[in-house]
Amino acid sequence: MDMKRGAYASTSGTTTQATSAMNSIKDYILQSHLQPGDPLPTESQLCETLGMSRSSVREAVRTLAALDIVEVRHGHGMFVGQVSMRPMVESLVFRGLLKPGDDYRSLREVVQVRRTLDTALAQAVVEAWQGREDPAIDDVVDQMEALAERGETFTDQDRSFHRMLLAPVPNQLFAHLMEAFWAVHTLTVPMLDAPRPEDIVNTAKAHRAMLQAARSGDVEAYREAVVAHYEPLANALTRS
Amino acid sequence: MDMKRGAYASTSGTTTQATSAMNSIKDYILQSHLQPGDPLPTESQLCETLGMSRSSVREAVRTLAALDIVEVRHGHGMFVGQVSMRPMVESLVFRGLLKPGDDYRSLREVVQVRRTLDTALAQAVVEAWQGREDPAIDDVVDQMEALAERGETFTDQDRSFHRMLLAPVPNQLFAHLMEAFWAVHTLTVPMLDAPRPEDIVNTAKAHRAMLQAARSGDVEAYREAVVAHYEPLANALTRS
Repeated sequence: MDMKRGAYASTSGTTTQATSAMNSIKDYILQSHLQPGDPLPTESQLCETLGMSRSSVREAVRTLAALDIVEVRHGHGMFVGQVSMRPMVESLVFRGLLKPGDDYRSLREVVQVRRTLDTALAQAVVEAWQGREDPAIDDVVDQMEALAERGETFTDQDRSFHRMLLAPVPNQLFAHLMEAFWAVHTLTVPMLDAPRPEDIVNTAKAHRAMLQAARSGDVEAYREAVVAHYEPLANALTRS
Repeated sequence: MDMKRGAYASTSGTTTQATSAMNSIKDYILQSHLQPGDPLPTESQLCETLGMSRSSVREAVRTLAALDIVEVRHGHGMFVGQVSMRPMVESLVFRGLLKPGDDYRSLREVVQVRRTLDTALAQAVVEAWQGREDPAIDDVVDQMEALAERGETFTDQDRSFHRMLLAPVPNQLFAHLMEAFWAVHTLTVPMLDAPRPEDIVNTAKAHRAMLQAARSGDVEAYREAVVAHYEPLANALTRS
């Protein structure tokens, strides 16, 4: 990844007219005080309102749709997008796939970012979960353990667990960031050899330990469970 | 931001044919073992090779360009992109602008993510900087302090400082992530009132304290300097 050429420069690969149309559409959304999900004018109305050509508006809309700033529902029109981390996920997953032979370096980096964030959020997660009852997350952990006993992996349950764990943390940007790196990880990890049955069981147990530590208000035990949670994966990366 | 509808679902707002063309172009890059910066075939050649219509290929290329997976240099052709965090930055900045009245919540969240990451990276930064000489970063801190004494802000120096500080940390994904949040922060912060002269001076001093703590191998002092570094901003957010 090359951040040197400008992390926040305007979008590359678009014509000057389309970039200008993009900025006009963004300004239009802001000045009209529209919010995510609100409908946008039709393409023809936008061309007229902004005084831009149809091809510029069309190109701008496609770029804004790729960035989740505009959402195009075919047959229903255009809407203000929900703004997500999906563009970053697509970029990072592709980067991971681009250099698989690079000693799994991309995957290692993603796993390290996840572990660092999980550890850094220990205090916030424990504060949010101390004494909290939520049978849904217990169900998810039960399912994980049952699948692990049969030697099966549990991607869906894993996603639900991490999402539920961060749901009561007030700063939801952390949750979005963690989910984005979870997705990059999950979409890149199939390059590795299949996990061993004992790794699957230990990973399931570590989830239960994270939840128990959070509920009992034990920040240090939570951090240890986070490290244990990534241990089987770290071992698989060492073997690969 | 709505991650519920699928953090890693395929790109919304594109037609089925264009999505299929996008996947074909990604597969072509992977199967040809191309790397960032390598040239891609022309649009006509891609249509022929992939057996897709010109309009689908053109729409796919625009979307991939918005995600920095393909780079279009007008008059020079198409190249494999460098894959960056710019798409996430554009999304988050727009999100920040979309709800400025929301008690600066977006900006607060971004600042908290930066502080959490800076604190979590204390050990890695100290390990990378202990005893390290690099006159360029001292120059940057000198410039910051000189500007601060005159009551001037120092965005360029701030960016250089944080980039240089993370440059020797082995996992460069952290550097990209930090620079992305730095950019979101910097592009969103003008919504706040101008900083007070003493805040500018204190922020400059905190940068010097971070560098000194890292060089002397003092992780705890580094963490304290990080907190002091965000203090003036935290106060400005409280006042706003």
